[in-house]
Amino acid sequence: MRVVVPFAAETPKTRLESVLTSAERSAVARAMLADVLCAVVGAGHEPMVVSTAPLDLETLELPGEVLASASVTLDERSLTDAVNARLPGGEGETATDGIDPVAVVMADLALATPDALEALLATSADVAIAPGRGGGTNALVVRHPGFAVDYHGTSYLDHREIAREVGATLETVDSFRLATDIDEPADLVEVLVHGREGARAPTCLREFGFEIDDRDGRVDVGRDGDHGAE
Amino acid sequence: MRVVVPFAAETPKTRLESVLTSAERSAVARAMLADVLCAVVGAGHEPMVVSTAPLDLETLELPGEVLASASVTLDERSLTDAVNARLPGGEGETATDGIDPVAVVMADLALATPDALEALLATSADVAIAPGRGGGTNALVVRHPGFAVDYHGTSYLDHREIAREVGATLETVDSFRLATDIDEPADLVEVLVHGREGARAPTCLREFGFEIDDRDGRVDVGRDGDHGAE
Repeated sequence: MRVVVPFAAETPKTRLESVLTSAERSAVARAMLADVLCAVVGAGHEPMVVSTAPLDLETLELPGEVLASASVTLDERSLTDAVNARLPGGEGETATDGIDPVAVVMADLALATPDALEALLATSADVAIAPGRGGGTNALVVRHPGFAVDYHGTSYLDHREIAREVGATLETVDSFRLATDIDEPADLVEVLVHGREGARAPTCLREFGFEIDDRDGRVDVGRDGDHGAE
Repeated sequence: MRVVVPFAAETPKTRLESVLTSAERSAVARAMLADVLCAVVGAGHEPMVVSTAPLDLETLELPGEVLASASVTLDERSLTDAVNARLPGGEGETATDGIDPVAVVMADLALATPDALEALLATSADVAIAPGRGGGTNALVVRHPGFAVDYHGTSYLDHREIAREVGATLETVDSFRLATDIDEPADLVEVLVHGREGARAPTCLREFGFEIDDRDGRVDVGRDGDHGAE
């Protein structure tokens, strides 16, 4: 299945700016992208990164089989427009193409595993959604030419409504790993707790000095030197 | 399977105090407990509420078959102690009992469904855990007499370590519904977005005036009158 991975290459992860410099945010974003690409290839699919700025996949230091399966294309449009252009009913598609399903997986799903993705990709509904926290849509599969995304606002509810309007069947996939997008400092805990052995994002965060801090029973992440400041 | 549902009856949901009065927090906590009990019974099991204070299940207005299946017992000890007393190796158990598995499901898993619970309860590992956000343990099944819980701190990691120490096999269950405990105001969004048709907690929140607010593209919950205050 074609798996589109949108990537905001220019201003990655601005909501992490209280704990990471711009260069660090970029490094973490690229590490998470690498982990997502590995998970997609591990599930047996070929990821296409749709990047808002030029991106050289060679610089991600991907394993050979992942680099061989992945491709990248530039699209400066909004997330919604860039995704819709690549859905079954999108601009590059014609009615005679038949309907090849398309999956869309966000680049910051640092906990994604081949198993979690396969549970989504193996659905049969016209539209299958793995919701994110806060009403978001973290990953979906589209098999209906009338369906289009709208990522603004409570996209999970909007996508349910759009599916209903176009007569598409809908399934919701229940996955903590796919529901966990890494946007805010509190989300970094999830990367450190649940990141897979050998994954890039937890390694990157640990190199930056982050560690789990549960001294007073509440769990947070701390960074080298934070302890003395309290 | 015996399904223990610990319930903090006296000071429920204090981290919601910025948006709910004490009486409202109690009502929401009871609504969530009712939803969890319905999900456990819907999955074909009999829930035992372990409450820190006297609780009359009749006052929860449960459906008849849920009320008939549920029981309540009083235990003023800490969460960890009250749960450990009821695990296969706990104080009420003897070696000649054989090992009846015990599940522990938190009372604030407002999104729990019979399917999500069944995915946990149908595991076969000695210990199966549905992690919560922030390194927590939202639900687990214990089939090994040597395993004991410790809910303080990063309990998910601690429980993995305890399982390893006692030689118990461990499985992690990937469920957004079970990972979502309702602790903080931001969590209320999840109840409104993903609460099941007819569930008590979303109905309760809506009666208190909460609704999804995504006017500026960020999703939050607002309450009657909040709009004019901004």
